[in-house]
Amino acid sequence: MPKNKQILLDNRPEGEASASNFKLVEAETPALKEGEVLVRHHFLSLDPYMRGRMNDAKSYAAPQPLGQVMQGGTVGEVVESRSPKFAPGDKVVGMGGWQEYSVVAADQPGALRKVDTTHVPLSHYLGAVGMPGVTAWYGLVKIIQPKQGQTIVVSAASGAVGSALGTLAKARGCRAVGIAGGPDKCRYVTEELGFDACVDYKQHADASSLSKALKEACPEGIHGYFENVGGMVMDAVMLRMNAFGRIALCGMIAGYDGKPIPMAYPQLILTNRLTVEGFIVSEHMDVWPQALQELGTLVGSGKLRPRESVAQGLAAAPEAFLGMLKGRNFGKQLVKVS
Amino acid sequence: MPKNKQILLDNRPEGEASASNFKLVEAETPALKEGEVLVRHHFLSLDPYMRGRMNDAKSYAAPQPLGQVMQGGTVGEVVESRSPKFAPGDKVVGMGGWQEYSVVAADQPGALRKVDTTHVPLSHYLGAVGMPGVTAWYGLVKIIQPKQGQTIVVSAASGAVGSALGTLAKARGCRAVGIAGGPDKCRYVTEELGFDACVDYKQHADASSLSKALKEACPEGIHGYFENVGGMVMDAVMLRMNAFGRIALCGMIAGYDGKPIPMAYPQLILTNRLTVEGFIVSEHMDVWPQALQELGTLVGSGKLRPRESVAQGLAAAPEAFLGMLKGRNFGKQLVKVS
Repeated sequence: MPKNKQILLDNRPEGEASASNFKLVEAETPALKEGEVLVRHHFLSLDPYMRGRMNDAKSYAAPQPLGQVMQGGTVGEVVESRSPKFAPGDKVVGMGGWQEYSVVAADQPGALRKVDTTHVPLSHYLGAVGMPGVTAWYGLVKIIQPKQGQTIVVSAASGAVGSALGTLAKARGCRAVGIAGGPDKCRYVTEELGFDACVDYKQHADASSLSKALKEACPEGIHGYFENVGGMVMDAVMLRMNAFGRIALCGMIAGYDGKPIPMAYPQLILTNRLTVEGFIVSEHMDVWPQALQELGTLVGSGKLRPRESVAQGLAAAPEAFLGMLKGRNFGKQLVKVS
Repeated sequence: MPKNKQILLDNRPEGEASASNFKLVEAETPALKEGEVLVRHHFLSLDPYMRGRMNDAKSYAAPQPLGQVMQGGTVGEVVESRSPKFAPGDKVVGMGGWQEYSVVAADQPGALRKVDTTHVPLSHYLGAVGMPGVTAWYGLVKIIQPKQGQTIVVSAASGAVGSALGTLAKARGCRAVGIAGGPDKCRYVTEELGFDACVDYKQHADASSLSKALKEACPEGIHGYFENVGGMVMDAVMLRMNAFGRIALCGMIAGYDGKPIPMAYPQLILTNRLTVEGFIVSEHMDVWPQALQELGTLVGSGKLRPRESVAQGLAAAPEAFLGMLKGRNFGKQLVKVS
């Protein structure tokens, strides 16, 4: 069996996460038992939710255990199988974690899924045609419930979730407006992803200024908002929400380091009769097949062209992860491990 | 025609409202035109929403116009009628405003409604069997959607909305927990209104301390919350909300003077997958008949015994209103005008 490099959570961050929270180790790959398969990972997914799980705080998911392999989504190839369901060469998506190989009990429901790479590149199953894409789909379709002609805004618009959100909103006849950091990302959001407008939050020092820019980008106000970041960006959007607007709360990356991120104007929820709903996509497995089908079609037909930032080699994962938390990635952040 | 005393909004408050914002005047009562009725008011309703309308701010309702009679709910008796729909002696509920008499176009939809005082005292049509009662009903039934055995919390529990909320929640097999200011109100909430527990927010200096008291009162956490006040009280409740909890946002009295009332922990909406929804009961007229029927039955059968604070005489309305905004009322605040 091959040697396996792994990245463990060594200790928990106090405040900002840092590379010293992680440890790279080498381990043996255990021999397969009946029903198990050995997967060689091609790509690891790096996602903002992982930062939350590094804290030992009450949250929707149990914390990432100390001293164990960082958990996370992976795509790869079956290299050995003692399960009738998988054969060497199968392309699979799973939750293999930050390591080069994983041994998976193939019978465990949802543990490993065979995917077709004819029209969709393997890596996209960690992004637009995977968890981030379904996250966008659920928030838009089930929470925001957009109607044709409405204006839908998403923060972190150039990211894996945001880019899918915009394409899904356009497919429903909506005006899609992104919020992103910097002119390059904003240009990508409008020119490549087909959003109608994008506002660069880095040009604005406070919610009031950002809110004025949003007014120009959203002349008919904002009907639906998909929130990935929280803090000042959310305050600015709330100031522009229309009556009966709907907000899907998916992430609050601004608060992951433990900094307070108060909502400045909660009274807008009342005066504008807003609905604000938090959700976790893994609790809505029933929508995944329908969502993945639409997302796969959008990617396969070229209507959704997701961008990826790819770090090279397992050892690069911590720095790539920390950079993503600061918005240094551009599109879906991946690590190529083989 | 009788002389009519009226209270006008003379100028808008800067910060806290004060008696000098109002002006008492005397006016002639105009002769009735065809289709009009003259109503002598017995009681005026004083409600927190009126404070919001005194500001010249964008909100769900147009501001109260300057120099005009303060708008608001009234109950009274028809004293003269040129409409076939009403006869002298009819008891009616309407929006007569802060004055002794009103002239009403009887054909205008919703302007005037005849009520039966056999089992329900007239004044209660401004409270438990009126707008505040329906407000509680809508928030509980349509937004919180309680299930038997769940714990439902309401702030301003001894008030017109809160008292109805608790009784409606108990009728659905829920644990009802109130938050109110002071031992007298808390005793009333548990002993007279039948709530299972009541927490005195005045005993707590911050959200963390109030939250601990709520933990004791809500050993199984909080499934649904009906918010009347905002600020520190809302923060404390949010810290105790269960996963998939639902919050009906009806009032944020804490912010009516223009003070900022940030929500301290909006990330709880995400981590606990909460739904927070603001609403205005006047936008849901379709539920009024069903709600009023249940509320009338609860009051008529003695299951809901709403308490009233009654100020005497029209001239007492401003001080009674300002006192209510500071929580000095005990139960539904009314003004007896004749």
